[in-house]
Amino acid sequence: MPDTSQWFTETSDATGSGFALRVSRKLHEEQSEYQKIEIYETTDWGNLMVIDDCIMLTTRDNFLYHEMMSHPVLFTHPDPKRVVIIGGGDCGTLREVLRHPGVQQVTQIDIDERVTRLSETFFPELCESNDDPRAELLFIDGIKWMQQAEADSIDIIIVDSTDPVGPGEVLFSEAFYRACHHALRPDGLIVQQSESPLLHRELLKRMYQDMGSAGFAAIRTLQFPQPVYPGGWWSATMAMSPGAWPEPRYTGMEKIAGLRYFNRAIFDASLAVPAFMAEE
Amino acid sequence: MPDTSQWFTETSDATGSGFALRVSRKLHEEQSEYQKIEIYETTDWGNLMVIDDCIMLTTRDNFLYHEMMSHPVLFTHPDPKRVVIIGGGDCGTLREVLRHPGVQQVTQIDIDERVTRLSETFFPELCESNDDPRAELLFIDGIKWMQQAEADSIDIIIVDSTDPVGPGEVLFSEAFYRACHHALRPDGLIVQQSESPLLHRELLKRMYQDMGSAGFAAIRTLQFPQPVYPGGWWSATMAMSPGAWPEPRYTGMEKIAGLRYFNRAIFDASLAVPAFMAEE
Repeated sequence: MPDTSQWFTETSDATGSGFALRVSRKLHEEQSEYQKIEIYETTDWGNLMVIDDCIMLTTRDNFLYHEMMSHPVLFTHPDPKRVVIIGGGDCGTLREVLRHPGVQQVTQIDIDERVTRLSETFFPELCESNDDPRAELLFIDGIKWMQQAEADSIDIIIVDSTDPVGPGEVLFSEAFYRACHHALRPDGLIVQQSESPLLHRELLKRMYQDMGSAGFAAIRTLQFPQPVYPGGWWSATMAMSPGAWPEPRYTGMEKIAGLRYFNRAIFDASLAVPAFMAEE
Repeated sequence: MPDTSQWFTETSDATGSGFALRVSRKLHEEQSEYQKIEIYETTDWGNLMVIDDCIMLTTRDNFLYHEMMSHPVLFTHPDPKRVVIIGGGDCGTLREVLRHPGVQQVTQIDIDERVTRLSETFFPELCESNDDPRAELLFIDGIKWMQQAEADSIDIIIVDSTDPVGPGEVLFSEAFYRACHHALRPDGLIVQQSESPLLHRELLKRMYQDMGSAGFAAIRTLQFPQPVYPGGWWSATMAMSPGAWPEPRYTGMEKIAGLRYFNRAIFDASLAVPAFMAEE
């Protein structure tokens, strides 16, 4: 076995796999009101944020996740104006959403303000749009907020949460999806990160059931590479009330500056269903 | 840092990242004439083969790599009959190629017979087609074999090699590509694993240059998830002599039994070029 003393290693008991990044030093550690947050400097991946011993993001590869959590759903909705992000405290998803000129208001609701404050310090590029007048940052319980949200008031809900264990678990529930369904306009969409297509197939099946029970009639899963998450292959699941999935809206893509992964071909590609998933 | 004593961890100095699998026991270890080969039993990924401390494959996820190294190129060629595999000693690529009824002969050339013998013992499902009368297994130097191959005699060359360090390095060279180009029929194709699109971008650029210098006029890179390789996101690069890339041949896919990842949608998806690669 190689010497791992200079490496930050996250091992997952549930999947029997782990991922390691070589670190040069620890930049910060604190126990917030909700969780333990650590920031490392890595040798090859920029800065690294770890929450409760799980890798959250690095400077180098977060663009894959943040672009795929935002642009596919924004380009599926015909004209998204009002967007709500549940979680997403690092503000990377918020930045991507604000690239869309048609969006009029984005509310980001993360319970832990410390994640955002540390992101401002250690991932400043993700926070460069936080002062956009269209952005509203709330540090409260996103589930309660959603339960009290006005009916038919939101075009897109992005659930940019941690894994379905601990604080993030209630975000993977029929009750939460029901609240989202109530708050969404009739042509509104929800998207939620849905773990690894290879390693978390039971979770995906349960999400489809729970989203269906909550009133969503059309559900699709998209896939993308995400090196620092277990298995390096990740997914997000989108749902909407109308039963027929619309043709994606390809217009306006050329106006979105700063994209590093997403484009029309990648959008289409992300929706391809592997043989083993098609069978299920 | 978690206890990693029950984990096999491969760390890569070049990428500053590592991957770990939880192992229950070591099943075998030997120093062959060419390399150190280890076999482990894992808790969640089936068996694991490690060569010179690098993870080669697991029972659980090798289907992604083997299907994507074979079917895209076989479905790009109009009528592949004669296929040569350089490397590929675990026989997983050979099995996929032999699923194509039109293929008349497949020669697999891996310098180390021990890899194949150990695969027969620990990955028997990958070797289930080794007795197919169309299969020829040679345990000699694949580069020498290619240099002496008859001109215009091969439809498809699959370079299923280790990384471009150590014994595999000469397979990533203009001289080798030139020998392949000479042995291929005019409409023949070569495909070679080309590492991570995110982490090995310099390698990809060099391959394009070297393949071009060797006479290949059209070159395309396909991508797929491969959890146990660095970064979990892998690529293969295809090249051919005619300058215009042909429309893939979609006919006959439904006749290929046993596919777990590859299908028409995944084929198309694998060719999507991410924004950062399109710019380069």
